[in-house]
Amino acid sequence: MNSHIAAVELEKAYRLINHGPTVLVSAEHGGVADVMAASWACALDFSPPKLTVVLDKATRTRELIDASGTFVIQVPTVAQLQMTHALGTTTLHDNTDKLQQAGAELFHLDGYAQPLVAGCAAWLACTLIREPHNQTAYDLFIGEVTGAWADTRVFKDGHWHFESADPAWRSLHYIAGGHFYATGALHVVPTDADS
Amino acid sequence: MNSHIAAVELEKAYRLINHGPTVLVSAEHGGVADVMAASWACALDFSPPKLTVVLDKATRTRELIDASGTFVIQVPTVAQLQMTHALGTTTLHDNTDKLQQAGAELFHLDGYAQPLVAGCAAWLACTLIREPHNQTAYDLFIGEVTGAWADTRVFKDGHWHFESADPAWRSLHYIAGGHFYATGALHVVPTDADS
Repeated sequence: MNSHIAAVELEKAYRLINHGPTVLVSAEHGGVADVMAASWACALDFSPPKLTVVLDKATRTRELIDASGTFVIQVPTVAQLQMTHALGTTTLHDNTDKLQQAGAELFHLDGYAQPLVAGCAAWLACTLIREPHNQTAYDLFIGEVTGAWADTRVFKDGHWHFESADPAWRSLHYIAGGHFYATGALHVVPTDADS
Repeated sequence: MNSHIAAVELEKAYRLINHGPTVLVSAEHGGVADVMAASWACALDFSPPKLTVVLDKATRTRELIDASGTFVIQVPTVAQLQMTHALGTTTLHDNTDKLQQAGAELFHLDGYAQPLVAGCAAWLACTLIREPHNQTAYDLFIGEVTGAWADTRVFKDGHWHFESADPAWRSLHYIAGGHFYATGALHVVPTDADS
């Protein structure tokens, strides 16, 4: 494992996606792994941490999540721009070499069956909370976060450090038509709450 | 009405929040209006456009949405940083002058009962799709977008123009403890799809 990967306290896991980044969704079942890009992922609760993600019925990743009951939401970086776009615009249904062609390398962590994508800034391992109505009517999936990690070069001690890290570590915010915005300048409002 | 406000085609309304900005949620019922900040809002569908937003049971805004069946999701800007933070850290339950003290000015558009917050970059008028189980179990609310508008100084012809607009127009991405990141640099991956 990359020596820069460190566990994130579960009660602070929401911070990994609170700024609304485009994410990669990965899953594995029966020896098949897939990764897709998703703009529509969002925190849902603090403790236990939960999140939502919208998964189109056409995606192979959704089938693997439905079969395995687990997945990972990870935060790709500017350095992974081309890979992220490729993972969001090709499907394993048509192209069994999708992951290799996109340049996505998977790894595993002890105690977790679901595959993680190397090189990301953060990872949230999730267990699917099955809600058949949401899944069928809205393509909306809910996951409980059971493990969280980040690369300490950009997230450390419970905080993102985009402003001091190399700009290639910034997260991505997709709009449409291949247009992504990177995370930008930090603005701090003085407050007594939180830390 | 601000002459820079222009309607956005409903099929492109998702682009107004696709990059995961922190939003303001506004609603009105029985002569009472409230606005809260929310990081946990997300697109859910393209056509008809839908979105999700997580609304804590303690918020007055949630009560107003439940009573009126309508709300607005709007995208505040760096210029509205202090206001956004104030709207997210005070409650109308305790402070009836909340909106005035935060500096939030409301306006209405013909044909829509719900109030909009002046000075934002974009607005999505929503009708609540009632899903009692989601609302009770997860504080998760679903809205169908019935009208969308943007300020043409930052969103025009179906596209954000953060890179050429004044930086004060950039949207906000909240993390925790008063820390917001602004939307940053544009990265474009060449593609045939979309326009």
